[in-house]
Amino acid sequence: MPADALSATFSALADPTRRAILARLARGEAGVTDLAAPFEMSLPAVTKHLKVLERAGLIRRGRRAQWRPCGLTPAPLREVADWVEPYRRLWEARLDRLEAFLAEQQEQVQQETPAAGGAARHKEKPHGR
Amino acid sequence: MPADALSATFSALADPTRRAILARLARGEAGVTDLAAPFEMSLPAVTKHLKVLERAGLIRRGRRAQWRPCGLTPAPLREVADWVEPYRRLWEARLDRLEAFLAEQQEQVQQETPAAGGAARHKEKPHGR
Repeated sequence: MPADALSATFSALADPTRRAILARLARGEAGVTDLAAPFEMSLPAVTKHLKVLERAGLIRRGRRAQWRPCGLTPAPLREVADWVEPYRRLWEARLDRLEAFLAEQQEQVQQETPAAGGAARHKEKPHGR
Repeated sequence: MPADALSATFSALADPTRRAILARLARGEAGVTDLAAPFEMSLPAVTKHLKVLERAGLIRRGRRAQWRPCGLTPAPLREVADWVEPYRRLWEARLDRLEAFLAEQQEQVQQETPAAGGAARHKEKPHGR
């Protein structure tokens, strides 16, 4: 079990079923039976996933007489968003470089390809640029 | 080992040392020895963490003669950001509700607290709102 809160959150999110449960709860509270239905899973299996999510603080379980609905608590997801945000500049910079590279490649191709009219080697600027 | 890429990413991020390694690599490439230094860890222990990060596609390791620098590959982090983004409205809505609640509470306190001058029960609007 990870010791720090963010590690516990990431660990809880490292499972597609648990992420699907969160996606369902983002639309509103649900009981264990409702949550189990789309996954063709036994109730104990779903309950185990819910316990992991609950320990990570990603869901809370209410107590209303016979019904114990699960609800999403978004605070840990905010921590995830805050953690990943500083890395955004890295993939954006990479996309910028990729775009510049592709534009350059395209320009080169257009320069090297003989035009339909036969004006090859005549360095034309591509249209609309 | 998680089967899907996003689960592998979350699993790799569920460790403070691995997150610290990524933070270091966000500043530029580094060798294993450089990465090991701040953590007071053995080289094999760091190498193990690097393998987890590499399997998740979060880093790549170069091959330059004697030096095999590690570099960050931000694509999986972008997947994390894209995954968490739709949940933003949940914590933002929650903050809006909290803010409204606190404003209401403050207004109530100011209405119930006798003013210094003695004009109690006189429902004053708080200043500057």
